Amino acid sequence: MRAEVISVGDEIVSGQIEDSNAAWLSQRLAGLGIPVAAYSAVRDVQTEIERTVKTAAARSDVLIVSGGLGPTHDDVTREAVAAAGGVELVLDPPSLEHIRSFFAQRKAAMPSSNQGQATVPRGSDVLRNATGTAAGFRTVIGGAQVFVLPGVPSEMKLMFENAAVPLLPRDQGTVATRTLKCFGMPEALIAERLRGQVELDGDPKVALLASCGVISVKFTTRADTRKAALERIGPPLAKARRLLGDVVFGEDEDTLEKVVARLLEQQGKRIAVAESCTGGLVCNWLTNVPGISRHLIEGLVTYSNESKARLLGVPEELFTTVGAVSEEVARLMAENVRWRAGADVGVGTTGVAGPSGGSPAKPVGTVHIAVSAAGGTVHQKCALRGARAQIKDRAAKHALNMVRLELLRANPG
Amino acid sequence: MRAEVISVGDEIVSGQIEDSNAAWLSQRLAGLGIPVAAYSAVRDVQTEIERTVKTAAARSDVLIVSGGLGPTHDDVTREAVAAAGGVELVLDPPSLEHIRSFFAQRKAAMPSSNQGQATVPRGSDVLRNATGTAAGFRTVIGGAQVFVLPGVPSEMKLMFENAAVPLLPRDQGTVATRTLKCFGMPEALIAERLRGQVELDGDPKVALLASCGVISVKFTTRADTRKAALERIGPPLAKARRLLGDVVFGEDEDTLEKVVARLLEQQGKRIAVAESCTGGLVCNWLTNVPGISRHLIEGLVTYSNESKARLLGVPEELFTTVGAVSEEVARLMAENVRWRAGADVGVGTTGVAGPSGGSPAKPVGTVHIAVSAAGGTVHQKCALRGARAQIKDRAAKHALNMVRLELLRANPG
Repeated sequence: MRAEVISVGDEIVSGQIEDSNAAWLSQRLAGLGIPVAAYSAVRDVQTEIERTVKTAAARSDVLIVSGGLGPTHDDVTREAVAAAGGVELVLDPPSLEHIRSFFAQRKAAMPSSNQGQATVPRGSDVLRNATGTAAGFRTVIGGAQVFVLPGVPSEMKLMFENAAVPLLPRDQGTVATRTLKCFGMPEALIAERLRGQVELDGDPKVALLASCGVISVKFTTRADTRKAALERIGPPLAKARRLLGDVVFGEDEDTLEKVVARLLEQQGKRIAVAESCTGGLVCNWLTNVPGISRHLIEGLVTYSNESKARLLGVPEELFTTVGAVSEEVARLMAENVRWRAGADVGVGTTGVAGPSGGSPAKPVGTVHIAVSAAGGTVHQKCALRGARAQIKDRAAKHALNMVRLELLRANPG
Repeated sequence: MRAEVISVGDEIVSGQIEDSNAAWLSQRLAGLGIPVAAYSAVRDVQTEIERTVKTAAARSDVLIVSGGLGPTHDDVTREAVAAAGGVELVLDPPSLEHIRSFFAQRKAAMPSSNQGQATVPRGSDVLRNATGTAAGFRTVIGGAQVFVLPGVPSEMKLMFENAAVPLLPRDQGTVATRTLKCFGMPEALIAERLRGQVELDGDPKVALLASCGVISVKFTTRADTRKAALERIGPPLAKARRLLGDVVFGEDEDTLEKVVARLLEQQGKRIAVAESCTGGLVCNWLTNVPGISRHLIEGLVTYSNESKARLLGVPEELFTTVGAVSEEVARLMAENVRWRAGADVGVGTTGVAGPSGGSPAKPVGTVHIAVSAAGGTVHQKCALRGARAQIKDRAAKHALNMVRLELLRANPG
């Protein structure tokens, strides 16, 4: 089985946006046992799309095309795929009804330009769009099954899972991947610790991947069944986990905030957060986890000194003696937000996110983080690199990781 | 002139890493007046690379290939490109010397596997690698100039700028793009408002692009100089701006938070934010803007009802009468956070982000937003769709957009 992925859009080819759909589709297809052999991106030009689809269909079993199904004049993927298959576009009445009701629910008239979104190449299977207006479809060109999906990632993913996956050919066993998610140790040190202990080029293949401070150790193998593949991954994964200890914060889809939320749930604890340099990012991540409202009392983004004093009782004189970016202030923030909110765990962050505000003693990237809990208050000083957004990101991750380690310490095993 | 970009690497095609090289190269080439017509990614398979290079070379003037120049057995781009050109690989002695000294500086012996990195297809121009070991090269295949660069982004970029750019064919002036950023009106309605008034398929070409609730109206043209291109874009851009009114929140790299920060700066005002369902996202975005510390006093993520009562003085009985997700609570949050912080502008958000917590009267996606300022308090009720993260995203954008409109009202022009 051979699959290709094609993304359509001027904005992708011109580099104005990075194409996250392609990577997502490749991973999902691999998980379904369908390896992707090539990926292409083409502009919103009907002849270019038609040529690319024809060429790829001639050498593939499965083709996933996304993008160019919108209502505007530069969306021409429908026309191009129909032409590649040598058929005309026909109206799909249920899709038109769906678009009409989409606008009716929003108390708006359907613009005439949206009507084209209900057309598909003759003979196609229609793929319903649960969240948007564009109908997708599956058609057959030159022996390949061609799936055409919207470019909006949320619509594409939902349509792929609900409408495309059930129609995909399946005959090759399956590829399984399991991942250890690590934080707090550089990639090279993680590789060093595994080397000689866990076979990296064997089966399962082991790959290290760094992204925004999180190191993923990925174990991949192929077998007849998912169960068999997972059984082959199990032992080396467990061994790597032992070798890396509490550097491993989770597995697979885990994030630091999901793990923290899970520990709070397991221990029946509540948290309060006081952020300065991270500017609300810790809270924003925590509140991405469904159900966190049972465990997050509040977050204070005390961005100004007056706010640190009024909301957290940080004594004004500290700002002139040790300064707002200091261990003392981070500790007070963590302790007082915990105390005032009546929380089990308190977090404080204060630092210089840049690009200005640095000094020789406290250069940009200097961040103090404190976590207060029943057992006392722990503090960490970080010297982070990068632009403002990256410093915020890494500081927020360190804060969540400190909370995780604190919760593990309070309740080991 | 027609260019294509080809990335080589299993990890790209399998979706394990996103390919940032392609977007970077497309943007740089466009800036040099060389539009990229298509992009492909291929696996580390010699026959696949050879076929892809041959096909692309046959229809292009410039081909940029990156990746697969490393020292290991799965790096086969050199061999594949030489085969596509029908020539053999020959050793380039200066490149070998460079690799030897690279290892000597690190006090290490050169592994024999690195010797292959000093070979190039016969007749190529060698592109020196200032930071790594792999030599790049330019060769000619079927009338196309084929540039082959390393895959490591830092090495690729440096080699492109220093060694490839001087050799690129140049005869076509430059491509310029200007963008109007819009919020609060669906893509189809924006297209409808422009249709007949602004030529969409003319020169400049006009494209609409929706991403996370923000609609970009992009004007692109080509001219001998950047100045001439921008002059051609000017009049239709200004006309579209007039037609769309305050739906346009900014241009080019503007975001809602940058525009809000700019208005606060211009008006010398300070803001305080009280968030419930947006969970810190409004503050997180605002604090991504350098210098916001002069204008953001504080943010309160009053996630629990006890926190809304204690920090913002929301009367407890409201939670049982109208409920926390209500116009009354949103207004009190905005007014009280403004009053308690001594801010000029206060924001309040409260809603049901889901996936649970919805009811027939207040389904998931129900969000109340209020903005309080000297002129009074405005309120908006939104019915948002999508998953939890998307509801937070859209609610936070609506909140920032309401602040923007309020600041514009306070100080028009």
